[in-house]
Amino acid sequence: MTYFDHLPAVRFEGPKSDSPFAYRHYDRDKLVLGKRMEDHLRLAVCYWHTFVWPGVDMFGAGTFKRPWQRPGNLLELAQLKADSAFDFFSKLGTPFYTFHDTDVAPEGEGIRDYVNNIKSMTDYLARKQEETGIKPLWGTANLFSNPRYAAGAATNPNPDVFAFAATQVFQAMEATQRLGGDNYVLWGGREGYDTLLNTDLKRERDQLGRFLSMVVEHKHKSGFKGALLIEPKPAEPTKHQYDFDVATVHSFLVQFGLQDEIRVNIEANHATLAGHSFHHEIATALALGVFGSIDANRGDPQNGWDTDQFPNSVEELTLAFYEILRHGGFTTGGMNFDAKVRRQSIDAEDLVHGHIGAIDVIAIALERAAALIENDQLAEFKKQRYAGWETDFGRKVLSGGYSLESLATDAVARNVAPQHVSGRQEHLENVVNRAIYGTL
Amino acid sequence: MTYFDHLPAVRFEGPKSDSPFAYRHYDRDKLVLGKRMEDHLRLAVCYWHTFVWPGVDMFGAGTFKRPWQRPGNLLELAQLKADSAFDFFSKLGTPFYTFHDTDVAPEGEGIRDYVNNIKSMTDYLARKQEETGIKPLWGTANLFSNPRYAAGAATNPNPDVFAFAATQVFQAMEATQRLGGDNYVLWGGREGYDTLLNTDLKRERDQLGRFLSMVVEHKHKSGFKGALLIEPKPAEPTKHQYDFDVATVHSFLVQFGLQDEIRVNIEANHATLAGHSFHHEIATALALGVFGSIDANRGDPQNGWDTDQFPNSVEELTLAFYEILRHGGFTTGGMNFDAKVRRQSIDAEDLVHGHIGAIDVIAIALERAAALIENDQLAEFKKQRYAGWETDFGRKVLSGGYSLESLATDAVARNVAPQHVSGRQEHLENVVNRAIYGTL
Amino acid sequence: MTYFDHLPAVRFEGPKSDSPFAYRHYDRDKLVLGKRMEDHLRLAVCYWHTFVWPGVDMFGAGTFKRPWQRPGNLLELAQLKADSAFDFFSKLGTPFYTFHDTDVAPEGEGIRDYVNNIKSMTDYLARKQEETGIKPLWGTANLFSNPRYAAGAATNPNPDVFAFAATQVFQAMEATQRLGGDNYVLWGGREGYDTLLNTDLKRERDQLGRFLSMVVEHKHKSGFKGALLIEPKPAEPTKHQYDFDVATVHSFLVQFGLQDEIRVNIEANHATLAGHSFHHEIATALALGVFGSIDANRGDPQNGWDTDQFPNSVEELTLAFYEILRHGGFTTGGMNFDAKVRRQSIDAEDLVHGHIGAIDVIAIALERAAALIENDQLAEFKKQRYAGWETDFGRKVLSGGYSLESLATDAVARNVAPQHVSGRQEHLENVVNRAIYGTL
Amino acid sequence: MTYFDHLPAVRFEGPKSDSPFAYRHYDRDKLVLGKRMEDHLRLAVCYWHTFVWPGVDMFGAGTFKRPWQRPGNLLELAQLKADSAFDFFSKLGTPFYTFHDTDVAPEGEGIRDYVNNIKSMTDYLARKQEETGIKPLWGTANLFSNPRYAAGAATNPNPDVFAFAATQVFQAMEATQRLGGDNYVLWGGREGYDTLLNTDLKRERDQLGRFLSMVVEHKHKSGFKGALLIEPKPAEPTKHQYDFDVATVHSFLVQFGLQDEIRVNIEANHATLAGHSFHHEIATALALGVFGSIDANRGDPQNGWDTDQFPNSVEELTLAFYEILRHGGFTTGGMNFDAKVRRQSIDAEDLVHGHIGAIDVIAIALERAAALIENDQLAEFKKQRYAGWETDFGRKVLSGGYSLESLATDAVARNVAPQHVSGRQEHLENVVNRAIYGTL
Repeated sequence: MTYFDHLPAVRFEGPKSDSPFAYRHYDRDKLVLGKRMEDHLRLAVCYWHTFVWPGVDMFGAGTFKRPWQRPGNLLELAQLKADSAFDFFSKLGTPFYTFHDTDVAPEGEGIRDYVNNIKSMTDYLARKQEETGIKPLWGTANLFSNPRYAAGAATNPNPDVFAFAATQVFQAMEATQRLGGDNYVLWGGREGYDTLLNTDLKRERDQLGRFLSMVVEHKHKSGFKGALLIEPKPAEPTKHQYDFDVATVHSFLVQFGLQDEIRVNIEANHATLAGHSFHHEIATALALGVFGSIDANRGDPQNGWDTDQFPNSVEELTLAFYEILRHGGFTTGGMNFDAKVRRQSIDAEDLVHGHIGAIDVIAIALERAAALIENDQLAEFKKQRYAGWETDFGRKVLSGGYSLESLATDAVARNVAPQHVSGRQEHLENVVNRAIYGTL
Repeated sequence: MTYFDHLPAVRFEGPKSDSPFAYRHYDRDKLVLGKRMEDHLRLAVCYWHTFVWPGVDMFGAGTFKRPWQRPGNLLELAQLKADSAFDFFSKLGTPFYTFHDTDVAPEGEGIRDYVNNIKSMTDYLARKQEETGIKPLWGTANLFSNPRYAAGAATNPNPDVFAFAATQVFQAMEATQRLGGDNYVLWGGREGYDTLLNTDLKRERDQLGRFLSMVVEHKHKSGFKGALLIEPKPAEPTKHQYDFDVATVHSFLVQFGLQDEIRVNIEANHATLAGHSFHHEIATALALGVFGSIDANRGDPQNGWDTDQFPNSVEELTLAFYEILRHGGFTTGGMNFDAKVRRQSIDAEDLVHGHIGAIDVIAIALERAAALIENDQLAEFKKQRYAGWETDFGRKVLSGGYSLESLATDAVARNVAPQHVSGRQEHLENVVNRAIYGTL
Repeated sequence: MTYFDHLPAVRFEGPKSDSPFAYRHYDRDKLVLGKRMEDHLRLAVCYWHTFVWPGVDMFGAGTFKRPWQRPGNLLELAQLKADSAFDFFSKLGTPFYTFHDTDVAPEGEGIRDYVNNIKSMTDYLARKQEETGIKPLWGTANLFSNPRYAAGAATNPNPDVFAFAATQVFQAMEATQRLGGDNYVLWGGREGYDTLLNTDLKRERDQLGRFLSMVVEHKHKSGFKGALLIEPKPAEPTKHQYDFDVATVHSFLVQFGLQDEIRVNIEANHATLAGHSFHHEIATALALGVFGSIDANRGDPQNGWDTDQFPNSVEELTLAFYEILRHGGFTTGGMNFDAKVRRQSIDAEDLVHGHIGAIDVIAIALERAAALIENDQLAEFKKQRYAGWETDFGRKVLSGGYSLESLATDAVARNVAPQHVSGRQEHLENVVNRAIYGTL
Repeated sequence: MTYFDHLPAVRFEGPKSDSPFAYRHYDRDKLVLGKRMEDHLRLAVCYWHTFVWPGVDMFGAGTFKRPWQRPGNLLELAQLKADSAFDFFSKLGTPFYTFHDTDVAPEGEGIRDYVNNIKSMTDYLARKQEETGIKPLWGTANLFSNPRYAAGAATNPNPDVFAFAATQVFQAMEATQRLGGDNYVLWGGREGYDTLLNTDLKRERDQLGRFLSMVVEHKHKSGFKGALLIEPKPAEPTKHQYDFDVATVHSFLVQFGLQDEIRVNIEANHATLAGHSFHHEIATALALGVFGSIDANRGDPQNGWDTDQFPNSVEELTLAFYEILRHGGFTTGGMNFDAKVRRQSIDAEDLVHGHIGAIDVIAIALERAAALIENDQLAEFKKQRYAGWETDFGRKVLSGGYSLESLATDAVARNVAPQHVSGRQEHLENVVNRAIYGTL
């Protein structure tokens, strides 16, 4: 018996289907640019958002009251939750899930209890995986909910908190490795500050640098073949988080020599909270060579916090996929639904609606991005736009053939008078919309 | 005859003065922490904001109509403007000014005309400097107003635009060096994108990297002793500017190996547009070792664009100065008024009011920050807060004495159970306010 | 000879067309819900954005240099501009245009010159209209660009400015009436404040109230049959504009008894700057009974100013049209393109691309909204959701059948224990996306 | 025994005091503009923020663990909480407190239990009040935390939820009246929508209108002499709240004829979330005649949610008090600390620091505002600025002496050519800063 017993498995039925419990666009075996949709998208359901969050917000109590959110034996409830989770994954037909250590195992009373619980639940999850073939896209450790982390984990003023955090990451990496996860994620929700008045920025940065280096060293020592990912977010819960955005993470990685070891897991809602478009953060990560994976969701453009809603814009996601596909698609990464149903959406059905809608939107976006690429007018336009840099003069400038003075002298001698040409933004926007709406 | 002939020189008259044309707090020779106020603050009037902007906004024509903003011989008008500018500097008694090449010299018709004009006006400014003893805090080149730069300067798709920009920077550096400027600033107002659809991020980043390297090489070759500074801004005029904030600039500098060559010039209004407090950007630059200089102004918290108003918050500036003084104060940098009077403030008097108010606010903030430092409860609190990292265990963790696994093993063995302690934010905020309002 | 001579007329060619100068979705005679597309949409080209703005921004000079933006006889240049404008309208096949008085006629030297110019150009426009059959959706007066309006028009501290503004509105209403405009618009770009320190809010509100009342009285006296519209905007150019959003305008209208006389012209970019979705502002205006017309554009979600880009989101506009169609569609209103090509888009072609792309997006959105309405699951869901209010108890509560005390007493007596039910947000979002992407 | 037993009473000790547990500026009996400071400020401690919130945020569990936040008999814990609360009020020496029904009384199991609990705890509070002389500034009902209110209270689709809400408001008004509260507050935290897709705006507005009318009717019937207040907030917890800002509430009040019955309770953090300055919302409420009371706190300028921090800006509050004092000061209203210590500030001491710091800041601001008023250069400047409206011509325009046409005709006849004059913003900002920092 699981929480989702009464719901049907979700199947692809095509665009004409009237069923609210069918995929109309996500056809996992359909080939897009020569690859199966499922292999392109690498969809993952997020344990925390779908099975752990109880429907609370800052002004109200939990509305969901799932069976495992009632009083009882904590390990048994964790197993009940896992049973329902794997039933849910199976019904959706999504190949991956993602988890925090404390989503799947009870925190317990103290560090030893924690270790026992995570080991026990890893065994349990391994069995569920065997039954279903579903495995983690990534695992991670929750280093922000327990009051011990109120002042940070790796950046805590107390080194024992650093040690507790290291223990959790060690255990969560072990669990992820054992369960065959393709990535391990670090999200530094409390690695930041509430006020500069009590914070030593430089010291905390050094602490975080050492912590990440330990994680990298452990990855190599343990033989974990997956990728390490950092998830940027500008703020919330702290006033300011050190992993503000992709560029800030890159600044950190380059400073500590970790740019070849750690990539980024980009969340749409975190991008917009940082003052960037989702498209921007993806394009930046790809340009900097640190793109890893995606947390697919959306924020509310009028609300200044992390609303973690299901993605529902083909227009936004087509551009995201265009960038990703242009760079070869996902390797270890994928699309994780870092998204929760609204607090008013209290039924099991709502969880299904949220995922189906998002998966279909993503499937359409993948196909529309593929259409853009098959006749890639954007790439062609860019090629012509920068053609001057492929001339002898352009190459010489870039390769160090001129000093500032010699270039200035040359420019005056040639009496250069470059004229602006159109950037054709409106035309290119039309090109994108034709790819999206071309078959209407 | 200058535009400011009818106005008196501004003198320090003390807090009781009723005069709207006197300093009540800025007493240049007063010692603060053993150094003259003038030497601490290194105040600079900004040529562009005070003498060039005509009072236009996106919805309205210029309201100012200064004498040099009328039709006429361009070089003569530039000289008239310079005469009034130096009269203004002298009347304020500020030791520095800052300028774009095209603020002080007419752009002319073509690149050769430009070069002649900037050389001619550099001579003129040199004479004004000799008469007054006032010199540049920094110079810079305007690489954003002329239509040729609509698609960027160093990041332009056309290498001839890069060459034109190099010419301007070369000339502006020459002028700055000749005029004895202490810094040279790069603000990449068009180094960004309006749409990703026509933009090759990686290529433009490489172009910018080469441009900055040429500037660094030229600095060393030319013997310019000042500092090179980049001024971060997140957007405006472009949708996204590559120098988004301090951390993003740092990412760039480290990638191109320029972190010891270029520092940042932080503007308050740019900080807030990037989603940071001014305090944050200063503290970050100091922690990253790239702090250079300040563009003192303020934005409007309710308006999402660069309003460049005069700074008027002692509360904000006290924290800024606290950070700067704790790190030894300005070296080559200073406080430049990147601030303009409102479009409705059309009179010469308004320019004086704007500067006097800002200078007095800055003087108070300097003194209040000094009071904070003389009895530095913030530093003492931080020292105690992080004391655990000065124990043997803390040092061992940071210095690489533990692997992730050995630290995790140790933590379980010790059964660590760290408890959160208060961060005392409210108390520390009271400490700051007592420093500011303690003598009321 | 017009600026657009070299460009072809834009025709509907269907979704398969490869032409960048064809409509692929806007088929003016196609029936949607029994009405011609053209009659639904009532498309208007905006004179200011398309023919007047020279491509300046706050950091750069004009890039466009249209033929009428060169020195010359002002009336002749205005006629040249009008010739090109009507050629452009004709080539697009849009039935309406919108204008400010000073877009179409030179401001002149002084009030009498102004009056002569507007009269003269009204004659000229009347002839162009006769030739083409194109007429104004609305006219308006520019009460914000001239320095005289720096401190407001109706809300200016100087009553002579109020009088000048009244003159312009009088003339602009005369012109609009004579040219057969369907609406007259008031946008109070300077009706607000830069600082509260010099502003008497109550007094300025009274001034604005009197001004609007005069406009209403004149409408009735003059026999103008069109609608009067106010366009809300929260800020820019002022720090705060009195017509902040739809609700604020409503507050004003009700206070001055004008709620049956004036409706709102809602701009998408103004809505988002005010912290609302475009959808919200439309739904609010419809709920308050003051919906009038639309300024179709989009802002940049990451930029805090009015970017006035062409609308390009079918997803956003489908919801807008759903609301409008559900309430019977436009009466006097329509879709005005309050949108400008980017500063880099300097060619005549770019103006065409901008309009074609936007018109096709709007046409798709209209059809998708119609699909939503033909099988209106949203309306059906709402009906069931609020069904309790159609019971005897619900009606009695709403109609005043209970006092607070009697209702409280009744609730306790009945021991009411209402349970929350799902709001089905994710399902309803899927319903919308199925309408948009259902035929892919 | 209370939670605060170990802490001393807070006394005024003057600016030189070194004690962190003393007032340095709040001297309750000091006369300011002829009135005692205590009578000006009418300070109130907020029950919810100080005694109920457990230190949770959306990413972490409660950190505070106050004695009454442990398991036990709910009524006994409520009494323990009340004992500590009144001890805290007494030690601070603040004359007022504010409360939600469910802050002071357990919600209980069902509506009857709720009624019994609130009645019982009202008795208990009455005794505490008798002992201490402290009484409510206002009471209110929590219509947002219980899951029954997930879809709103008065605006809920289920009329039984409306009835439950009416019961709570009835009881909370009874309690407030019995306890001698000066105001009753309505904050519609869930009166808004999460999505327009399932929301009937017009219907919900009508429901809210009826609800408020019932409250007004009950006030008159019950003989409650206090004021009714609505507290505006733009969003959070809902996507959009109907009481967005002061102007929106005014729109509602005038539509339902309640503008003489209900005033506004303005919260600083809500103002800034709505895109307004705190100053703006206060000035607007005063101009519209609906100003009531203040929720004193501050938001974080970089964070887009309600951070409810203690106010600590004299600069911001001086302008707030200037407006309030200019209009005669508070009548029934006061300054309620709608502010909570940070989640890291876990000690009883932190609660004291937060309040002391805020109270001293407010006391300074009151005195600085009084200094502004005693030599009111702002008022004098405004008087001269609008002097034109006090001429015969100005009065005639405003009083309806001109039609649009006659005014336009007159303007042309007079050949009016009004020139812009300076608004002197920078000078006036200096005037304010001189009032704040004049005695340094």
